[in-house]
Amino acid sequence: MTHFATRLHAAIRRTGTPALVGLDPRFDWIPEDIQESAARRHRANVLLQKSSAFEEFCRRIIDVVAPLVPAVKPQAAFFEELGPSGLLALSRVIAHARSKGLIVICDAKRGDIGSTAEAYARGYLAGADPNAAPWASDALTVNPYLGRDTLEPFVKVARERGAGLYVLVRTSNPGAGDFQDKASPSTAGGEAMPLYRHVAAAVEQLAAANADADGFGFVGAVVGATYPRELAELRAAMPHVPLLVPGYGAQGGGAAEVAAAFRPDGLGGLVNSSRGINFAIRQSPWKEQFGPAEWEQAVEAATRQMIADLRTCTPALAPTGT
Amino acid sequence: MTHFATRLHAAIRRTGTPALVGLDPRFDWIPEDIQESAARRHRANVLLQKSSAFEEFCRRIIDVVAPLVPAVKPQAAFFEELGPSGLLALSRVIAHARSKGLIVICDAKRGDIGSTAEAYARGYLAGADPNAAPWASDALTVNPYLGRDTLEPFVKVARERGAGLYVLVRTSNPGAGDFQDKASPSTAGGEAMPLYRHVAAAVEQLAAANADADGFGFVGAVVGATYPRELAELRAAMPHVPLLVPGYGAQGGGAAEVAAAFRPDGLGGLVNSSRGINFAIRQSPWKEQFGPAEWEQAVEAATRQMIADLRTCTPALAPTGT
Repeated sequence: MTHFATRLHAAIRRTGTPALVGLDPRFDWIPEDIQESAARRHRANVLLQKSSAFEEFCRRIIDVVAPLVPAVKPQAAFFEELGPSGLLALSRVIAHARSKGLIVICDAKRGDIGSTAEAYARGYLAGADPNAAPWASDALTVNPYLGRDTLEPFVKVARERGAGLYVLVRTSNPGAGDFQDKASPSTAGGEAMPLYRHVAAAVEQLAAANADADGFGFVGAVVGATYPRELAELRAAMPHVPLLVPGYGAQGGGAAEVAAAFRPDGLGGLVNSSRGINFAIRQSPWKEQFGPAEWEQAVEAATRQMIADLRTCTPALAPTGT
Repeated sequence: MTHFATRLHAAIRRTGTPALVGLDPRFDWIPEDIQESAARRHRANVLLQKSSAFEEFCRRIIDVVAPLVPAVKPQAAFFEELGPSGLLALSRVIAHARSKGLIVICDAKRGDIGSTAEAYARGYLAGADPNAAPWASDALTVNPYLGRDTLEPFVKVARERGAGLYVLVRTSNPGAGDFQDKASPSTAGGEAMPLYRHVAAAVEQLAAANADADGFGFVGAVVGATYPRELAELRAAMPHVPLLVPGYGAQGGGAAEVAAAFRPDGLGGLVNSSRGINFAIRQSPWKEQFGPAEWEQAVEAATRQMIADLRTCTPALAPTGT
């Protein structure tokens, strides 16, 4: 069974980019033709209508970006808001992305103790075999607040299935530091470190214990692009850890801010953009260049622009022969 | 619209107990007759089979405990492991519990930023109106790692809908202290406090800002029974905060360990038991007293024993006239 980091980096090398496309459907912003056809199919039930629209919208984004990027990241919450029909749509979106050869990272930020954590892991982590879990993802985002022992069940299932994890270390929101920055001494004594560094140490240990030939583990970390200093610090503190970097684009981070996420060979990071790609047609310069019905062309243009932008900070990934 | 804490405490006063029954279905432990009838209904699909068995098992537990306790706490992960059909079963279990007059606390430990957090809140928090959300819970457990600003969208939706939140403060697992105990000074200077106290301070502030006539807010906290010293410390530090106390029973806590959760009037705490009640028939003394087909009688006996046990530490709640 192929290690998650090996599969991920093969996809990154093949596409020549660490661009990750988030799938964050919001009903009010979905193109009118999709909204209308969903309304015709499910006239009496708003949740079915929205679920159907979310599914079609995400499938069409996937069809546009699959040849361009290594991975997509569906956001579970938006599907979950719609109830069971929304989560059925999520499972279909994930299956569609995998059928197109994309790595799927489900952004569900789960976390719990013991057998409960294992139940989440079994529900989401399919790893190498798309039939192994209902939401058949390659990787899952995980919340560490409950403690190291609560990461173990996720690690166990991920190891069994060739799947990956991304543990929240330093998030991209304005209040990320409220608790994550609280400084305290390490158990071995020594200088005080912010909480996120203690979490980072635990994640690095898990990643190093199961590293692939490139030197990366299957336990990754979420580190926001909105805090470039912490990103550089954490890349150094977690040399075996694949990073998932949110906060590019709509949240304000640019190529310069995310440059620190990568090793000199260009590996080790995935940079996410969600709204900036999903709803490119609502934003400049795309809304001036494309008509409302050409929203998929805007998705493609925004994705290509992101790829070109990221290449300025990861020159090592430029496809050979180009 | 009635405040969550007011509705909760009315139910606690009516039943005379702070006992909370967790719903943690595990397929291998579910009574054979339920497993078999589910297998007959859904011969070809294991996930549908298990979902159907989980639903029936939980409905029958609810029917037994509804006259005895104020609230139930379904664990989302076990349903989620089964995919969309499992989450449909969860929504039906929640609806059934509410139709029986129970307060429902969905234990899903969600947490995310901004509009994503709001989507989770809208999916789970129905509050006073059972039609307001697909998983129509009265309250939801929430993870604080991402920061105070990520609690705000949950608080906003809970306030609008008369719902409640239980923020993870000090959990019941062996590794709870790994990150939650990291000590650091408060922003105002002063002595170093463990992380869970910083989270507690944020939760107390949210609760105090929206307290009901009894002095409790709708933002509660999860504090494990397995750490009695921290429980007493946190009750004092969070006077406006309703507590949800896991770790009673199977995890090792007893009535003495949870006594500190309550105010002198017996309010302010809910004590959860899941496995000890759901699977009472597999445990002494119930497995000696009841046959396998009498598992519901074991559920009732275990619930009554828990209620009697808790009364030794919450005498103020003894029903009037008894």
